[in-house]
Amino acid sequence: MLTLENVYQAAFALKDIIRNTELIHAPKIKEDVELYIKPENLQVTGSFKVRGAAYKISRLTPEEKEKGVIACSAGNHAQGVALAAARNNISSIICLPDGAPISKVEATRAYGAQIELVNGVYDDAYKRALELKEARGLTFIHPFDDDYVIAGQGTIAIEILNDNPDVEAIVVPVGGGGLISGIAYTVKALRPDVKVYGVQAAGAPSMVNSVGNGEIITLDGVQTIADGIAVKQPGANTFDICSKYVDGIVTVTDDEISTAILTLMERQKLVAEGAGAASVAAVMFDKVPVKGKKTVCIVSGGNIDVTILSRVIDRGLLKSGRLCKLSIELTDKPGQLRDVSTIIAKHGANVVSVNYEHAGKGSDVNNCILGIEMETKDNEHIKQVQDGLTAHGFKLI
Amino acid sequence: MLTLENVYQAAFALKDIIRNTELIHAPKIKEDVELYIKPENLQVTGSFKVRGAAYKISRLTPEEKEKGVIACSAGNHAQGVALAAARNNISSIICLPDGAPISKVEATRAYGAQIELVNGVYDDAYKRALELKEARGLTFIHPFDDDYVIAGQGTIAIEILNDNPDVEAIVVPVGGGGLISGIAYTVKALRPDVKVYGVQAAGAPSMVNSVGNGEIITLDGVQTIADGIAVKQPGANTFDICSKYVDGIVTVTDDEISTAILTLMERQKLVAEGAGAASVAAVMFDKVPVKGKKTVCIVSGGNIDVTILSRVIDRGLLKSGRLCKLSIELTDKPGQLRDVSTIIAKHGANVVSVNYEHAGKGSDVNNCILGIEMETKDNEHIKQVQDGLTAHGFKLI
Repeated sequence: MLTLENVYQAAFALKDIIRNTELIHAPKIKEDVELYIKPENLQVTGSFKVRGAAYKISRLTPEEKEKGVIACSAGNHAQGVALAAARNNISSIICLPDGAPISKVEATRAYGAQIELVNGVYDDAYKRALELKEARGLTFIHPFDDDYVIAGQGTIAIEILNDNPDVEAIVVPVGGGGLISGIAYTVKALRPDVKVYGVQAAGAPSMVNSVGNGEIITLDGVQTIADGIAVKQPGANTFDICSKYVDGIVTVTDDEISTAILTLMERQKLVAEGAGAASVAAVMFDKVPVKGKKTVCIVSGGNIDVTILSRVIDRGLLKSGRLCKLSIELTDKPGQLRDVSTIIAKHGANVVSVNYEHAGKGSDVNNCILGIEMETKDNEHIKQVQDGLTAHGFKLI
Repeated sequence: MLTLENVYQAAFALKDIIRNTELIHAPKIKEDVELYIKPENLQVTGSFKVRGAAYKISRLTPEEKEKGVIACSAGNHAQGVALAAARNNISSIICLPDGAPISKVEATRAYGAQIELVNGVYDDAYKRALELKEARGLTFIHPFDDDYVIAGQGTIAIEILNDNPDVEAIVVPVGGGGLISGIAYTVKALRPDVKVYGVQAAGAPSMVNSVGNGEIITLDGVQTIADGIAVKQPGANTFDICSKYVDGIVTVTDDEISTAILTLMERQKLVAEGAGAASVAAVMFDKVPVKGKKTVCIVSGGNIDVTILSRVIDRGLLKSGRLCKLSIELTDKPGQLRDVSTIIAKHGANVVSVNYEHAGKGSDVNNCILGIEMETKDNEHIKQVQDGLTAHGFKLI
């Protein structure tokens, strides 16, 4: 059962396993909001998930501990269960689909779990996990729909209320709903005046739709860079708790999430995964009514692939005018590349790549297309470079 | 004068301005070292520099405060002085060369400083700062060679010794030497058994050379991605303190620093600038004798331009085999691109860009060069893709 007593017991049980991630004041992210970050990306295993997993495991009977635990996840839950089991000296098996990113598989193995790669997709891995659970008498650790797991996540609320008693609103990423259920339940028990808002990815709005419709709705599919909250269906418990205690759930787009990831890197020096940055995106883009309020955003995790991070940065740079790609039509005669280079250099832009090719159909057969990628200061600076080029008769396409 | 009393007084004076950046356990960075990060990249202004600046300013007389302060810097020191002055309700002027990155200028202005852009390079801005100081009776805040500034940086040592009394070694980035002077002085006063090691960039080894030669040496030039520690000449005070109290100073290359930046992002979810990551690079690449020791690395700052970060990531991905660029010679006949694509897809690599052009001199005139950039798992995976292509008769160049 989810009780305040259990949340406090969880806080005690987790003392030696997790960090109390200190709130970080972030005054530069949104001018009209007094913003604090709860950096669970700096939590051991890189996400909050270890809290729920570790408390759940601490509540197992000696017989259950003897037999060990099993979970199915390719992400943060897997690492949380693996670490929590290892710290309790019990064995863990994690089932994953065999296409799971090698980095996540290795990270989970490194925390001490036995890895079971299953042919197929997530649902196949889940089925296999249930088979193994039955066959070997293991305890299945659900990623969110479990009262002890929810109580474990609720410890975040205790830390926030202790560290910043003035808090007026808490903004929480929502996938299956375990994190926000723990936080909302705890906050409303201790400080009912504090608002709790949930944020989902626009491409995976399962809890938004379910709470809005008053019944659990299952999405056909999910599509978002925030893989940590890409969940098709909320849990039965988490749906009830969210319906009862949460003050509102909103959605943010992948573009908004990308901007928040970049902002957290630049302004706060923090690497957040998509799910982790969703709460900050909701504040940045005015999705939640927190204007002028002391607001804590839960940055729930930081396990993002650096190849994706690299793409997010490039996209953010393009959007803010600090990276610019121009295509210029040149007549195929000597000196044109030199002239273009001279104009760009004069405007202080820094060329990072050049591509030069004969034009395809629709252009004069003698013409070439010059593709130039350069670092610029902002969109105004790009405009100046473009104007400089067109003033010299070059055609931008 | 640099005294332990002043370091403790600094800690008291800074209480309401800075954060005690909590140590973060980082067991996965280096297997045989018990590593902790002191994340001064999460400090207000994104670096430790605010400590020294704020303590120095707190020691000014009422008359000096009335007139205000001036500094010359395009980096972390500028932001530290600006914030510290604003928090003490005194005015500050920061002189910068007019080519300084617009983002740093704006950040400094946002902390409340008056910005004085000076035509020319750093030395011109410095000259202008001294002129203004004389003309207006301002106090010049030196970035490192000042006893109060050094005492302010020493507060980091007090925090480390309080938070982790078992520490055996502290590894510190070194530019002008203010940070390591404060830390080494304080540590040797309180816990002389704790080792203090300094790290410089191989392209800016001014303190290494000076201490090694027993006299202050001025470098002709500096060249490193770690702009925060690219200093041509140590201070007179910092040189003396380093010579007396520091247990060793080593250098790391830009490649080693880049790897450390990427590792801090992936493993610790922290964005570090080059100077900030230098300490971690020294531990990762066995430059300091800390094997088996409880070691604290000071990650001194996180103010790195994201365009540089993007390049560091790409370089790191290439080195670790997670990004791969192949050039393949194709005969100019239909179906070749399809065949290459099929082989790559079969091996599970993810193509991110393709470039296709007619070959230049030295190749058969009918041939083309196909440039493919793809995401791969590791160097072994790249080898498999390459072998798959050559087995089908494709020529890699």
